[in-house]
Amino acid sequence: MDKKISRKDFIKKTSIAGAGLAAMPFSVLRGIDDRKVNVAFIGVGARGIGHVSGIAARSDVEITAICDIDKENAHKAQKVVKDAGMPAPELYTRGERDYQRMLERDDIDGVVISTPWLWHVPMATDAMKAGKYVGIEVPAATTVDGCWELVETSEETGSPCMLMENVCFRRDVMAILNMVRKGLFGEMIHARCGYQHNLQPILINDKGDFGPGTESESKWRTDHHVNRNADLYPTHGIGPVSHWLDINRGNRFMTITSYASKARGLHSRIVETGGENHPNADINFKKGDVVTSLIETANDETIVVTHDTSLPRPYSLGFRCQGTKGIWMVDNDSIYLEGISPKYDRWEPFGPYQKKYDSVLWKQHEKDAEGAGHGGMDYFVRNAFVESIKRKVTPPIDVYDAAAWSVISPLSEESIARGGDAVEFPDFTDGKWMTNERIFNVTGEY
Amino acid sequence: MDKKISRKDFIKKTSIAGAGLAAMPFSVLRGIDDRKVNVAFIGVGARGIGHVSGIAARSDVEITAICDIDKENAHKAQKVVKDAGMPAPELYTRGERDYQRMLERDDIDGVVISTPWLWHVPMATDAMKAGKYVGIEVPAATTVDGCWELVETSEETGSPCMLMENVCFRRDVMAILNMVRKGLFGEMIHARCGYQHNLQPILINDKGDFGPGTESESKWRTDHHVNRNADLYPTHGIGPVSHWLDINRGNRFMTITSYASKARGLHSRIVETGGENHPNADINFKKGDVVTSLIETANDETIVVTHDTSLPRPYSLGFRCQGTKGIWMVDNDSIYLEGISPKYDRWEPFGPYQKKYDSVLWKQHEKDAEGAGHGGMDYFVRNAFVESIKRKVTPPIDVYDAAAWSVISPLSEESIARGGDAVEFPDFTDGKWMTNERIFNVTGEY
Repeated sequence: MDKKISRKDFIKKTSIAGAGLAAMPFSVLRGIDDRKVNVAFIGVGARGIGHVSGIAARSDVEITAICDIDKENAHKAQKVVKDAGMPAPELYTRGERDYQRMLERDDIDGVVISTPWLWHVPMATDAMKAGKYVGIEVPAATTVDGCWELVETSEETGSPCMLMENVCFRRDVMAILNMVRKGLFGEMIHARCGYQHNLQPILINDKGDFGPGTESESKWRTDHHVNRNADLYPTHGIGPVSHWLDINRGNRFMTITSYASKARGLHSRIVETGGENHPNADINFKKGDVVTSLIETANDETIVVTHDTSLPRPYSLGFRCQGTKGIWMVDNDSIYLEGISPKYDRWEPFGPYQKKYDSVLWKQHEKDAEGAGHGGMDYFVRNAFVESIKRKVTPPIDVYDAAAWSVISPLSEESIARGGDAVEFPDFTDGKWMTNERIFNVTGEY
Repeated sequence: MDKKISRKDFIKKTSIAGAGLAAMPFSVLRGIDDRKVNVAFIGVGARGIGHVSGIAARSDVEITAICDIDKENAHKAQKVVKDAGMPAPELYTRGERDYQRMLERDDIDGVVISTPWLWHVPMATDAMKAGKYVGIEVPAATTVDGCWELVETSEETGSPCMLMENVCFRRDVMAILNMVRKGLFGEMIHARCGYQHNLQPILINDKGDFGPGTESESKWRTDHHVNRNADLYPTHGIGPVSHWLDINRGNRFMTITSYASKARGLHSRIVETGGENHPNADINFKKGDVVTSLIETANDETIVVTHDTSLPRPYSLGFRCQGTKGIWMVDNDSIYLEGISPKYDRWEPFGPYQKKYDSVLWKQHEKDAEGAGHGGMDYFVRNAFVESIKRKVTPPIDVYDAAAWSVISPLSEESIARGGDAVEFPDFTDGKWMTNERIFNVTGEY
């Protein structure tokens, strides 16, 4: 409630909030019609370096600055840019707050943030306050307050904040979105999704270690498994589902309830790699191996969201899209549409539908997307970021999406802590979900 | 709480409760070693007639009596028995309570009840009080009190009450049970199941009608969709899962939370078949099209249970069995076992595992099961009923299983009514779940 009030204050304080992006107040975009888009990066580790190389491949962008506390990472990224034939971007490597010095530059239109989760909110809000167009990796925030801060800061400053959720651009989920919008599934009733990916070797190295001094994400990501019993990573699944269900544009998430199983996977990985006497073998991981959440929407659809990252298992985002006229499931790569599928209540292969309802975006940019990472979808999420800046428009995945999708994490944590009781979603749009129009893949251009 | 106390009273009143089935007090089984098992039936409609013909095919059974309020059904069943070369069973067709007259016969050892759901509890309790061995169709009860009544009556009378849950005997779930018990999945973490079956044409006929005067199950089953927002039919899914997780024997269900989607399917079936002006088009079905529940167990596994019966869709019970060492899913007919499957974190076909871990029961009775209904599993559930009577032992799916599995229905109804809050399961075993030993498929004989 306090949060709500403080948010209202924010809105009152700023005259631009109502006008939204039509006003686009930040000076950096001035003159952008006559020049390339200037992009900078905060965080160029395993994930960020992919963004650098993808953006460096574009002819409509200059990369002006790169920030990373790890000098080696920064220099590697600089080399990627130079190798792409661009001038060397200036590096900012003087510690955790050096990104703030970088943000003072006036030759940065957009900033892509790919840092450990706890840095997302402070960095994104600082970047918005500096008048930049922000692209933030997933999840945008790990707390309810963090989600509100992003929304409030974006409204106060008028700076857009795009969630860089690449799976929204996966070829199959975009074809499904196309089919949902054409009414092929009838009225939407139910959906499923999740992040089901064995991260054991990423979270615990082959000596049973994690934390400072170890490699890549195990430096910081494993800590969340030690301390938080929650769906830690909901956006890859809920992003596409939100588009099918028009979340924040005619619909919204109302309540969530979550259950966590026991936690065994990471302990077992530690024992297998480091032995029973490894000091980490005593750690009591809070995060259950399988966290399952049920979400109810304002339009009375239900959603099952799964987080399953610490057990041996094949990768699957577990998508299911179900309406009054049919159902698609990713796990059997099959679909059934009443009156269209040849056999009554029998699956048929999804392949021909993928071809027939392939998104315009994918058809047009198939070659650009080749080798862009994660099956090509990384090309599209970066493209959406850059093209939105060029057009001076709201990004197709905006700050309200970032907040509504990311808040699943802390809300699931609260529901689990309360024994599975239902927890209400904040309405980050302050009621505007009822009138907001679709922004994702509307024109088919980006 | 009251219920709990009344139950304790029950137990105190009866000296046989503690002794359980070892005492097997009902006189009818006297002399059974020297004769065939006498079976009677209450309800021989679409489901019951299958049981009659399956039992009539056995050489170790006599069918002594058949009860149905529908004389035509009763005569059809009698003919099935005669055609099998048995003496004609006496018929009881004098109305709703005529089954009580039938229960007075002393030439009935076991009674199979396949009537509309609301009759299950009164008929089963009357049969137990009459000293019969009871087999009851699914679900055993539709209310929490009904579940308690079954348990209390069985404890008071010493008469066993078997839930005739055929899916427990499905070939794949029995192979999985075999693998779970051999430790191939490691420690169990998570499971999924559900009843996903388009019942539109069964619930609403081709004129948009249901209720008295219509055919078969639409006479009475559709009423539950009109009046109850719940998982109406949980046992086909939760039965096999309960065996994997040793529910009631070292484990138990602790809490449940359920969400229901909007209800569209049955209304749309009425409009499609009867037109917009059909009087049934005004009915506001309470039962959401997709009801999803999360269950947590005493051993900290989690379960997702789905009820999805009013939308066009392919049939699936949606099984998933997941432990620390691997995962099986029915929808892609695939399995992954760490260290056994050839490719790291990649699915492989389940077929070879089905063959390798096929249950002894199926291997021995494959021919008996042929054509027995529902892919052969109906043979096994009837066989278990008859063989338990012959052996004078507890049936492999007992009254505690019947109660724990069936109570999901009223508990899900309560959780949905309370906005998805978690609801506690009663402990029908009164703590004995901690020490009870496995009873399902232990010897491999029945």
